[in-house]
Amino acid sequence: MSAMGLTYFNFFQSLKASYRRCLLYPNGGYAYRDKSKSRCYSVYACSKKPDQDVFLNSKFDTLLDSVKWDEKGLAVAIAQNVDTGAILMQGFINREALATTISSKKATFYSRSRTTLWTKGETSMNFINVYDIFLDCDRDSIIYLGKPDGPTCHTGSETCYYTSVLNFLNQSQAEENDLAMTTLYSLESTITKRKEELSVPQNGKPSWTRRLLLDDKLLCSKVREEADELCRTLEENEDKTRTASEMADVLYHALVLLALKGVKVEEVLQVLRLRFSQSGVEEKKSRKAQG
Amino acid sequence: MSAMGLTYFNFFQSLKASYRRCLLYPNGGYAYRDKSKSRCYSVYACSKKPDQDVFLNSKFDTLLDSVKWDEKGLAVAIAQNVDTGAILMQGFINREALATTISSKKATFYSRSRTTLWTKGETSMNFINVYDIFLDCDRDSIIYLGKPDGPTCHTGSETCYYTSVLNFLNQSQAEENDLAMTTLYSLESTITKRKEELSVPQNGKPSWTRRLLLDDKLLCSKVREEADELCRTLEENEDKTRTASEMADVLYHALVLLALKGVKVEEVLQVLRLRFSQSGVEEKKSRKAQG
Repeated sequence: MSAMGLTYFNFFQSLKASYRRCLLYPNGGYAYRDKSKSRCYSVYACSKKPDQDVFLNSKFDTLLDSVKWDEKGLAVAIAQNVDTGAILMQGFINREALATTISSKKATFYSRSRTTLWTKGETSMNFINVYDIFLDCDRDSIIYLGKPDGPTCHTGSETCYYTSVLNFLNQSQAEENDLAMTTLYSLESTITKRKEELSVPQNGKPSWTRRLLLDDKLLCSKVREEADELCRTLEENEDKTRTASEMADVLYHALVLLALKGVKVEEVLQVLRLRFSQSGVEEKKSRKAQG
Repeated sequence: MSAMGLTYFNFFQSLKASYRRCLLYPNGGYAYRDKSKSRCYSVYACSKKPDQDVFLNSKFDTLLDSVKWDEKGLAVAIAQNVDTGAILMQGFINREALATTISSKKATFYSRSRTTLWTKGETSMNFINVYDIFLDCDRDSIIYLGKPDGPTCHTGSETCYYTSVLNFLNQSQAEENDLAMTTLYSLESTITKRKEELSVPQNGKPSWTRRLLLDDKLLCSKVREEADELCRTLEENEDKTRTASEMADVLYHALVLLALKGVKVEEVLQVLRLRFSQSGVEEKKSRKAQG
């Protein structure tokens, strides 16, 4: 089993595991048999088929009973991208919606307007594949942590949160698509915009990002230089703030390189997630094979 | 103004801007005067003082009217860490709670049980400092994108989501603190655990992470090597999957270095956020000063 420990990454391992290695777990989940250690590890996505047995499980009922459903039998559900952390959408769930999601691993909600269960993607095919579910301290709010098959919003937007209140208040015209983005993705988006503007002639001194985008040699020398400086903070026992600063430099310059190659941060994180869902042995092999 | 463009990063610029440079914006926000271009850019956190003028603004009322409040006058509010993307907590808001948050920049909710307004942190002092607010497509759900002053949960947990439903179903004993974490932070957490286990003698071959943690020379040679390989995917025009894979290697090895130095990814992202909130000139100066 993975030298990196058992985390939700392990759910992915199952996608590769053959069904022969999948045993029905007593509590309704699945177990992954590690031949080398003759032990079973619990994983949940061995099969993407809805597992009806899960409904028979008493622990399952205990869990559903433990949710603090409101007077209408509902709780809040937030779908979040497991790699980027982007909040994709928010809906409501009832007992049946949560049970269906646990069983099918597709984010399922209860529509208050249509008074019916609905699985996100049932018409658009843009399902949200759920890898884990988290309850909050009050047990009346949950996170579906998963990977969307495509844009989540019915408008075609990546997420449903694309209207900035502060920009609306501050600007005469609201931005068309002002997606809620956290630091790394906001920086990625800015760099991507700079790349798209490369063909537009510019007055004055070009920005540092523009210079890097126009000069592969400069960019690569900076990526190597910043990685070296990051290492030196360890080798020369420099203080923590210096390490954070050099790592920020590494990230920024690497993001420019990714933008040039047309690679998204999300793709990189997906590689990491899949890699650390493999066994330690597999992981080392794959690293060797890569380079 | 910043060569990196106007994003929510600019809100931070204001924290450094002197009040002399802050002008009350006609719509109730603040403006940042860019001397070099004699233009004003809107920013919102010039002052952390509640801005009562904002209430006078008609655009502000238009916004509050546009929210699809439910039959109880409520909407869902999700607080998210601007740097890590972690969902901190979820509550409900009424018109007054949203107005207060926009004005005070402290995440404020409406307590359904106590039927009163409450600002997260008013007793614990662990406020959530809000940098932007996003409405969803239905206008009945919002994100408070901000930075927490400390742990958000009343239990002392970093976020309120620390109970994994799938782990509960699959294990005889639930984990004490099974925080909802996205890919990068899950990997960071695993590496940190490996670091904590270093003093524990281990049977068998050590994991790759353990080896790196125990050998600075090996670790630094890997960080430099992976950065070099990332660059070569650009220089030698290799395909995108190769770039994503090499960047994953850079990230993983750099995360081990950060763990050794006791630096969190969140600290690095904060550096990036603050850096790109500065003007292009300031940013270049600070880079020069750093290295």
